[in-house]
Amino acid sequence: MTAHTTVPPAESGESGESGDEQELKALYEQFGAAHMIPLWTQIDDLMPHRPTPRAVPYRWKWSELYPLAQRSGDLVPVGRGGERRAIALANPGLGGMPFATPTLWAAIQYLGPHEVAPEHRHTQNAFRFILEGEGVWTVVNGDPVAMRRGDFLLTPGWNFHGHQNVTNGPMACLDGLDIPMAHQNDTGFFEFGPDELTDTSTPERSRAERLWAHPGLQPVALLGRRPSSPIAAYRWEHTDRALTEQLALEDEGHPGTVEAGHAAVRFTNPTTGGDALPTIRADFHRLRGGTVTAAHQEVGSSVWQVFTGRGTAMIGGVEHGVEQGDVFVVPSWALFELRAEEQLDLFRFSDAPVFEALHQYRRASGTGVGA
Amino acid sequence: MTAHTTVPPAESGESGESGDEQELKALYEQFGAAHMIPLWTQIDDLMPHRPTPRAVPYRWKWSELYPLAQRSGDLVPVGRGGERRAIALANPGLGGMPFATPTLWAAIQYLGPHEVAPEHRHTQNAFRFILEGEGVWTVVNGDPVAMRRGDFLLTPGWNFHGHQNVTNGPMACLDGLDIPMAHQNDTGFFEFGPDELTDTSTPERSRAERLWAHPGLQPVALLGRRPSSPIAAYRWEHTDRALTEQLALEDEGHPGTVEAGHAAVRFTNPTTGGDALPTIRADFHRLRGGTVTAAHQEVGSSVWQVFTGRGTAMIGGVEHGVEQGDVFVVPSWALFELRAEEQLDLFRFSDAPVFEALHQYRRASGTGVGA
Amino acid sequence: MTAHTTVPPAESGESGESGDEQELKALYEQFGAAHMIPLWTQIDDLMPHRPTPRAVPYRWKWSELYPLAQRSGDLVPVGRGGERRAIALANPGLGGMPFATPTLWAAIQYLGPHEVAPEHRHTQNAFRFILEGEGVWTVVNGDPVAMRRGDFLLTPGWNFHGHQNVTNGPMACLDGLDIPMAHQNDTGFFEFGPDELTDTSTPERSRAERLWAHPGLQPVALLGRRPSSPIAAYRWEHTDRALTEQLALEDEGHPGTVEAGHAAVRFTNPTTGGDALPTIRADFHRLRGGTVTAAHQEVGSSVWQVFTGRGTAMIGGVEHGVEQGDVFVVPSWALFELRAEEQLDLFRFSDAPVFEALHQYRRASGTGVGA
Amino acid sequence: MTAHTTVPPAESGESGESGDEQELKALYEQFGAAHMIPLWTQIDDLMPHRPTPRAVPYRWKWSELYPLAQRSGDLVPVGRGGERRAIALANPGLGGMPFATPTLWAAIQYLGPHEVAPEHRHTQNAFRFILEGEGVWTVVNGDPVAMRRGDFLLTPGWNFHGHQNVTNGPMACLDGLDIPMAHQNDTGFFEFGPDELTDTSTPERSRAERLWAHPGLQPVALLGRRPSSPIAAYRWEHTDRALTEQLALEDEGHPGTVEAGHAAVRFTNPTTGGDALPTIRADFHRLRGGTVTAAHQEVGSSVWQVFTGRGTAMIGGVEHGVEQGDVFVVPSWALFELRAEEQLDLFRFSDAPVFEALHQYRRASGTGVGA
Repeated sequence: MTAHTTVPPAESGESGESGDEQELKALYEQFGAAHMIPLWTQIDDLMPHRPTPRAVPYRWKWSELYPLAQRSGDLVPVGRGGERRAIALANPGLGGMPFATPTLWAAIQYLGPHEVAPEHRHTQNAFRFILEGEGVWTVVNGDPVAMRRGDFLLTPGWNFHGHQNVTNGPMACLDGLDIPMAHQNDTGFFEFGPDELTDTSTPERSRAERLWAHPGLQPVALLGRRPSSPIAAYRWEHTDRALTEQLALEDEGHPGTVEAGHAAVRFTNPTTGGDALPTIRADFHRLRGGTVTAAHQEVGSSVWQVFTGRGTAMIGGVEHGVEQGDVFVVPSWALFELRAEEQLDLFRFSDAPVFEALHQYRRASGTGVGA
Repeated sequence: MTAHTTVPPAESGESGESGDEQELKALYEQFGAAHMIPLWTQIDDLMPHRPTPRAVPYRWKWSELYPLAQRSGDLVPVGRGGERRAIALANPGLGGMPFATPTLWAAIQYLGPHEVAPEHRHTQNAFRFILEGEGVWTVVNGDPVAMRRGDFLLTPGWNFHGHQNVTNGPMACLDGLDIPMAHQNDTGFFEFGPDELTDTSTPERSRAERLWAHPGLQPVALLGRRPSSPIAAYRWEHTDRALTEQLALEDEGHPGTVEAGHAAVRFTNPTTGGDALPTIRADFHRLRGGTVTAAHQEVGSSVWQVFTGRGTAMIGGVEHGVEQGDVFVVPSWALFELRAEEQLDLFRFSDAPVFEALHQYRRASGTGVGA
Repeated sequence: MTAHTTVPPAESGESGESGDEQELKALYEQFGAAHMIPLWTQIDDLMPHRPTPRAVPYRWKWSELYPLAQRSGDLVPVGRGGERRAIALANPGLGGMPFATPTLWAAIQYLGPHEVAPEHRHTQNAFRFILEGEGVWTVVNGDPVAMRRGDFLLTPGWNFHGHQNVTNGPMACLDGLDIPMAHQNDTGFFEFGPDELTDTSTPERSRAERLWAHPGLQPVALLGRRPSSPIAAYRWEHTDRALTEQLALEDEGHPGTVEAGHAAVRFTNPTTGGDALPTIRADFHRLRGGTVTAAHQEVGSSVWQVFTGRGTAMIGGVEHGVEQGDVFVVPSWALFELRAEEQLDLFRFSDAPVFEALHQYRRASGTGVGA
Repeated sequence: MTAHTTVPPAESGESGESGDEQELKALYEQFGAAHMIPLWTQIDDLMPHRPTPRAVPYRWKWSELYPLAQRSGDLVPVGRGGERRAIALANPGLGGMPFATPTLWAAIQYLGPHEVAPEHRHTQNAFRFILEGEGVWTVVNGDPVAMRRGDFLLTPGWNFHGHQNVTNGPMACLDGLDIPMAHQNDTGFFEFGPDELTDTSTPERSRAERLWAHPGLQPVALLGRRPSSPIAAYRWEHTDRALTEQLALEDEGHPGTVEAGHAAVRFTNPTTGGDALPTIRADFHRLRGGTVTAAHQEVGSSVWQVFTGRGTAMIGGVEHGVEQGDVFVVPSWALFELRAEEQLDLFRFSDAPVFEALHQYRRASGTGVGA
């Protein structure tokens, strides 16, 4: 793990010190007093030969997550101040920070029967991927958006949003945000909105979808490039159909899948063709039973959630059995491969748009990967 | 029409010439011999104060176009050499050139029962907007694409394509291409493909649609920016629904229409968010009965076809009654306004992407327009 | 030259016509009356297998151009109305139009001692490349820009500009504009400015250069992408030095030249990295004596002027001897090669940015080119 | 500082707990065991109403920095392993991390007489701004680049580079890198090059400058957009001249300065018009004596170094006297203003390109700023 092999003299000073060593010690003390830190004692850690994440590969079991989310529903009210009943998945490698990876925040959000989460907005970009429940609406800038299992919903930065559950059952979803980046870089702004939702109606489709969710069509009155997708909700029926078609085309002998038995779609911004959010990439993957993906590694981290099915995630050489609802993280440059025992549907989000924009993205796959 | 008011002396020379005039005449003859032409005698024509198109506003009646297309179906075979039974609409102002405007070629294409148009490809970008008929497939790079009334189909530059009619009835569509630009600028390449279609199957949906025509979703295996849209066909059912939604939202008090009573969608490239073709913009417009659009003028020309309904097009101060199937052209910078007697659905294409890319686009509307 | 080999029946009708032929003739007459033109009789011309320009390769000798420009200086005043004493080079293939190629206007502009060309502006983009004379200033949006031999000056669209000669000697330059494109497409606007120049001072460097002509530096107060370069003048001393360095680096064994003995620089827009004007590319080339460039062909046309030296331009198989001041055109897709008898310095401009923006650019070189 | 006012029940649990409190405590323990952390107890810290950086405004005095750098030159050899004699400026707010701000690494690099720093490369982007000394060359991908006072030199990511001092005197420069971002996000790669420099020649100008440092000119052989500027060194003479011109133009009554008495240039990438490095913005500022800049605040952090002169930096309400060589940091969203006692020249770098690319940049200035 030590990238650089020559030990600089600074590190060899101990007791029985020579005059040089004493002088060096004095220098290092002066450095400390002057808020200076030499590179030569730290370069191995600061500039490793390849990414050496503190974040570890980790898998959370839905069978643990969901009961705890339910329990918090019993004990903790949702409302102004706490804002959301969201429980973050804290990567064990990140020293107690509530972050799934150094860049991504992932949480289980739970909204009990007839609960309302008040409106607010923040510059952090957010999405919700719906695991369980129906009958909840998120209101984004005054536009009520129904949430149903399998849907992918956006709350791009600085859009007011709140939630309401109009049913007798609970709702659970995976929330993804770029909170760690904003937290690390001091870029975040936050503002309260009304305590009550601005629109409590419960339409089947949001106005955003009625305007924007038509394939290849854009409303002339609203044209123009936007940082984030104007499609408030990507519906499961469309995702499912697109994946089904890719596998059907493969059966018919035509290209369209990522690799044999592996269909995948990306949630995109129709005004740019790029990612749905400027800091977050979101994909949905379907593997036929028996498929083993090619091992690969990439710069940047990702979070996966199993939507249905059962399989294995090989991450950095360790095998994790995964099934419906389980969440797992793939740290930067970890060798990664998926194996599907039966048809395996997975939602995934990552920070790739950040590193693509900054020309820091790399990917390696095939023989020799991980060397 | 004369933009520049001072007549330079060069134009005043006539009989009874002074010595100067004789010398000038001699100079002009020498210019001619040397293939030189002075600017000062031509600047009014070459650089007018505002666009002064030779192309004129014009309307072709469907009641004339269609019978002649049918008649050509009886008399002229379709096949290799002539390639297509397409009859171009020739703007009366363009001196006999088969162009609707200086940049756009528009034609009625007619395919009789069980006819086949052989495969070829060209760098010119093409689309088809379907007026009449069902049961015809265009095969684009080996992918059969059904053509049905109201559909908008693409054949981007350098894609092989042919057509077949598998029914006992004819098919008619509006073909749009950027032939005049390629012809003017010497940019076009053309290549024959097979005489027979490479795939004679007749699927409900093309493979391109199965991969790409899902709202906001892109196939991960095929990502990347493309000059033209990968959506082979924009189906009428989606166009119609998007327009219906815009007007419904207007009824509900929400924005989405271009102006009161005027819904419009643009056919776009999901990989860029821009126009479906790099040289051609295509929109679909719906006006409620009674709507009068705001008069405006823009750089670049456009061609419209009435899909359903009845109304009036005011172009450069002249009124043209229009009804289903009628085609009309709006020359550059002509003042233009539409009036709908009853609900009026119109397809429109223009050269705007060219002038936007070159920073030559301008638009003016409202009071004082046309001054 | 005939691209498509099957002659459609429409073209075979002659006297002694059958009934079919009569019916066809009648149909064609009806087409004409309805302003319709069939594709099948014209496709060879409209959509050739490769570009078949009407513009021809042509060379104008400076020994002819300059005396005629001088003579016009004696006989034709410069002033409001005619605006400029510019004499366009008319490609013999373009039927008398004053255009060097279908897209480019090139002219010799001549300004006599103490003459003033009044201010105006137009959306057409313009540049000047200075052949002869010193002591002339062009005033661009109120900023006086000195013109000296070898300089390349910009007047981007819609900037007011006029010229004054403050010396006792004449000035001659090559003017390049995108007039043909604007004329063809009806995109041009024109406006008179003051008859007198707004600033008659004669500074060594323009304000634009003082702000923008520092390598890699941009003024923070004026940042932002612009369609055209803000550098009003690219000075010969910089061009010459850059070319000299490329050849010196070649001598030292390092890359930097286009091919052996062939240095070239492009005049670019520092705010985008792209071409100096949105519709016109401008380069300067230097060939060592004895250099023969690789033959190549490209979509789009270009105009060259010899700055110094002597050599041969092979264009479409025809050899043209060229020397200082000579101008020649290379039509679209013409096979082209340069041979330098002695060091040959050439200025060149082309329409390539247009076709790159529209995804119509192609280039072929090496063995097999021109097939 | 507490953004959200309602204290969620979770935080009120103390001794003498009710049953609810005990259950809640149990839940929180289960959360901990499951690597889950509730948002509602942390939202104030995680999502503050505006940026609340841990990094503090801080100023390092050159009178402290330089003697310590010199002292390390006596005591610590430079060579493989430690790689560089660079001493990082550690922001006192960042808990001992060697980072000037959360995103930027800044260090004083010191190279003694006749020392050589071995070649290596890393994906982290780097620059050097030269404070003291002449006679040092950095060799970037085999191209020796002279370093002289006032020069700004680039080592974009993944370029091999080493340094040599060929004189009897030392050299000191400010090194800036995006190490913290790479470290935080696990994106960095590092590779050793040769221990000896690949080219020990000492040319006046690098080959990169000879090819690229001509105003507005690009070598045709090397065209194409690049993530980082190909200009290896931005020379002080050009920077100085550009700033001098801006102030001269101001004296002449023309625009060009940022505000009265405040000239500034940006070091840019000529192939894109954007920042010289994809993650780092670098500017040079000159204030006339007596100038007070408008107070403003922006998202993202910056590091400044005084090149010459004397003045005051007001950062977040605290006044820091600054003079030649002093380095100071402005944390994200800190209110900032500069006052020049005498002509004040400052070099500045920041992380703004990152936040502009991710649509997270904000800036506020004028009355009411900082509210």
